[in-house]
Amino acid sequence: VPAIAYGGPDVPADKPSPESTKIAESLVLLEFIADLYPEANLLPKDPVQRAQARFFIDVVGNKFLPGWGGFAIRGESPDVLFKGIEEIQNILVDGASYAVGEQYTIADISITPFIARLELALDHDLGASTPGERKEVHKTLTTSPKYAKFWAYYGRIKNRESVKKTTDEVSPFIATSSAPADTCC
Amino acid sequence: VPAIAYGGPDVPADKPSPESTKIAESLVLLEFIADLYPEANLLPKDPVQRAQARFFIDVVGNKFLPGWGGFAIRGESPDVLFKGIEEIQNILVDGASYAVGEQYTIADISITPFIARLELALDHDLGASTPGERKEVHKTLTTSPKYAKFWAYYGRIKNRESVKKTTDEVSPFIATSSAPADTCC
Repeated sequence: VPAIAYGGPDVPADKPSPESTKIAESLVLLEFIADLYPEANLLPKDPVQRAQARFFIDVVGNKFLPGWGGFAIRGESPDVLFKGIEEIQNILVDGASYAVGEQYTIADISITPFIARLELALDHDLGASTPGERKEVHKTLTTSPKYAKFWAYYGRIKNRESVKKTTDEVSPFIATSSAPADTCC
Repeated sequence: VPAIAYGGPDVPADKPSPESTKIAESLVLLEFIADLYPEANLLPKDPVQRAQARFFIDVVGNKFLPGWGGFAIRGESPDVLFKGIEEIQNILVDGASYAVGEQYTIADISITPFIARLELALDHDLGASTPGERKEVHKTLTTSPKYAKFWAYYGRIKNRESVKKTTDEVSPFIATSSAPADTCC
């Protein structure tokens, strides 16, 4: 479970102070970062677009992540993953660069690391799935017209400087592999 | 699933226009209402308090509602309901009137109708649970020191004018009874 210790004295990251405020839960943290740094424009100003961003995050958490975890972490069939990708495609607006328009928001941030890790696992032929399944999923994602909208969306995300700078080609996958299967997703 | 049709022409509520924006999911709607009416102060301005409000909503959804639905809707043992109430008590700040301070926020709104409906079911001896269980739960909630913090918190909520005006003593319970058990919670 990701968490942030906010405020209090300057201490090592692994020794949080009792004086700092502890904040947990991914969605809460995303909103917190957007609130702390309004100049980063991580949420649109328009109430309807803000609602669309939050709805997107809900679809990521409830429709995309279960299938992602099933395939990438627990080695289950990729069918549920593909269903989740279709759900994401259903709410991606035609012609828009990101989830709710031209602005990269917490909606996109909520799915970015999961697709990036999936791509790493597929590219390096690693993970809980079988090699044959990974090969098939890799081919389907990168070549099938059925998922082209999703893959093009991810292509725009992964070309962002902030994503390139924070996506380590090796360590995230190692972290995923060593985590007990029941702690995630 | 609650939903709002926002914008577009003036139409009857049961005939939403294709021109309006449809917004769904309870948490998304709460944030949407807070964004639409900033003057209502449904979220604090402070980023830490906003995070605490959102964390409270997460606990309501993931720790309180499953036990609530189990007992009130499906007639299961009240044990999980009481565990959820303990989780809520753990994050209620001593001395504060509401979830994150003296301000009634979307955090409180997220739990208000569920406690109000539970109280109605207990007061009128109705619901999926057995009469004996309801009597026991009613007595425990209203007299046990173990849950006094939670019940006092609800006491402050139900005395609010906005809650009194929107809590119908009869119709919400009828709506709950006639809903298929698998559509909620």
